[in-house]
Amino acid sequence: MNMKDLKVIHKINEIRPLINNNLGKIALVPTMGALHKGHKSLIEKASEQNEFVVVSVFVNPVQFGVNEDYDKYPRCLEKDVELAKEAGADIVFAPSVDEMYTDIYFKEKETTLVCPPYKYVNRLCGKSRPGHFDGVCTVVSKLFNITKCNRAYFGQKDAQQLFIVQKMVKELNFDIEIVPCPIVREDDGLAVSSRNSYLSYEERKIAPNIYKALMCAKKLKEGGIKTPDILIDASYAYLKDFDTDYIEIVSKEDFCPISEVKENSLMLIAAKTKKNSVRLIDNMEL
Amino acid sequence: MNMKDLKVIHKINEIRPLINNNLGKIALVPTMGALHKGHKSLIEKASEQNEFVVVSVFVNPVQFGVNEDYDKYPRCLEKDVELAKEAGADIVFAPSVDEMYTDIYFKEKETTLVCPPYKYVNRLCGKSRPGHFDGVCTVVSKLFNITKCNRAYFGQKDAQQLFIVQKMVKELNFDIEIVPCPIVREDDGLAVSSRNSYLSYEERKIAPNIYKALMCAKKLKEGGIKTPDILIDASYAYLKDFDTDYIEIVSKEDFCPISEVKENSLMLIAAKTKKNSVRLIDNMEL
Repeated sequence: MNMKDLKVIHKINEIRPLINNNLGKIALVPTMGALHKGHKSLIEKASEQNEFVVVSVFVNPVQFGVNEDYDKYPRCLEKDVELAKEAGADIVFAPSVDEMYTDIYFKEKETTLVCPPYKYVNRLCGKSRPGHFDGVCTVVSKLFNITKCNRAYFGQKDAQQLFIVQKMVKELNFDIEIVPCPIVREDDGLAVSSRNSYLSYEERKIAPNIYKALMCAKKLKEGGIKTPDILIDASYAYLKDFDTDYIEIVSKEDFCPISEVKENSLMLIAAKTKKNSVRLIDNMEL
Repeated sequence: MNMKDLKVIHKINEIRPLINNNLGKIALVPTMGALHKGHKSLIEKASEQNEFVVVSVFVNPVQFGVNEDYDKYPRCLEKDVELAKEAGADIVFAPSVDEMYTDIYFKEKETTLVCPPYKYVNRLCGKSRPGHFDGVCTVVSKLFNITKCNRAYFGQKDAQQLFIVQKMVKELNFDIEIVPCPIVREDDGLAVSSRNSYLSYEERKIAPNIYKALMCAKKLKEGGIKTPDILIDASYAYLKDFDTDYIEIVSKEDFCPISEVKENSLMLIAAKTKKNSVRLIDNMEL
């Protein structure tokens, strides 16, 4: 393996001089760390397609709700740096919260926010996580402006996030290509996620039922069933061991619910395990 | 006068290929058109300090309230292009509303917005113009992303706008220098503004009283009076022919009201003429 020198940078004014027009195409892989093989696939794709790859590692407080897992979100920069290096990154940018937000955020819990339309955020993950996508769009905009990337890589597991970021890029005229990357799964179908580490042994065993619920809908659709409610009911049977936040079928075009399942229909599930309250999300094109 | 070739561009995908790293420093002068000698001073400063100057001319609907003057705001692109050319611009970027906003804006009056903290906008011009600064920050962000400017020039007449844009640049990490430019005045002291063209003959005669109100406070302060209320009362006497929206003294640092006038104190006035309801703003460092 041909490993490049990798720099770990913590300060905005230290990364700025490393970014210039002689680098060729610059890719950003924005992450919250706790990197796994899902992230690895993003970084590898980014290094195949670009001359320079920045992986950001930043657990962004602004996208977490008050009762969410910001404090306990897994942090392991040394391991992350190793994985990023193996996958071909040139820079790991791992700023502190102090570095990313200014005084007014700490004094008043306020900062200039990038806010996607209510229509995009008042549903699915946005409904149970008010302010979440404002936080995501804000930190992604900041990282775009810091890294001056030409392309940015996002996993399709966070399908609504990907949709909203794509809309944001268009609506705010960022000259950046968003590259969607396929969901990476464990052998038993569970979508890989940093939050899987919260699962108890028993929860880990039933977690793939979310994948089974999606596969069930996909097979029924391939068998000719096109009514969303029938597919949703059938899938829901796999989720009895979870507190289901949502299970919906939307159009990939506008993320709105559809009356008949066609090409470009996406089933999305968010469900919490009952013991440890681990919120898992997954989705599949039907 | 050495006039450069000036291009008038209406489309985002036509301006993008004209912007590249071989241009040297790129300046943006964002305007709503109806250019006057205030704008001219901005464009001239921009051409002195940069190799390439883009003047945007766009009456941004998102920053106007429902009962404001969006429809009647003066539009005169041909004259604007002449003035921009004389002042040294390389490009006039004059997109249509269709070009700047996507479907969801026209269907649902929504778009991804850049929203400054409530603390900055719930006062002064923001109080009587809800959503105004969200609209300003959104269109300015879009223009930053379209022009990839290194510097952007803003007049000090819109003092709160300048403050908020400077905060936005910092909080969203735009790698752009904001260059504040002094207020340009008519011989009788009236701050030049595109909205001055709405004034009736009689209103135009009394409009400089706003300037006199500011000068009154400045002189009293120079005479040793440091209590904001005394200065405000004295200035207010000049505004009896107006419906005063606000008259305040704030710190330039955080735009918060102050208890004692020091260096870096700014008096700000917004007042409407009684006949034509022309909203005039002005400010002065005391």
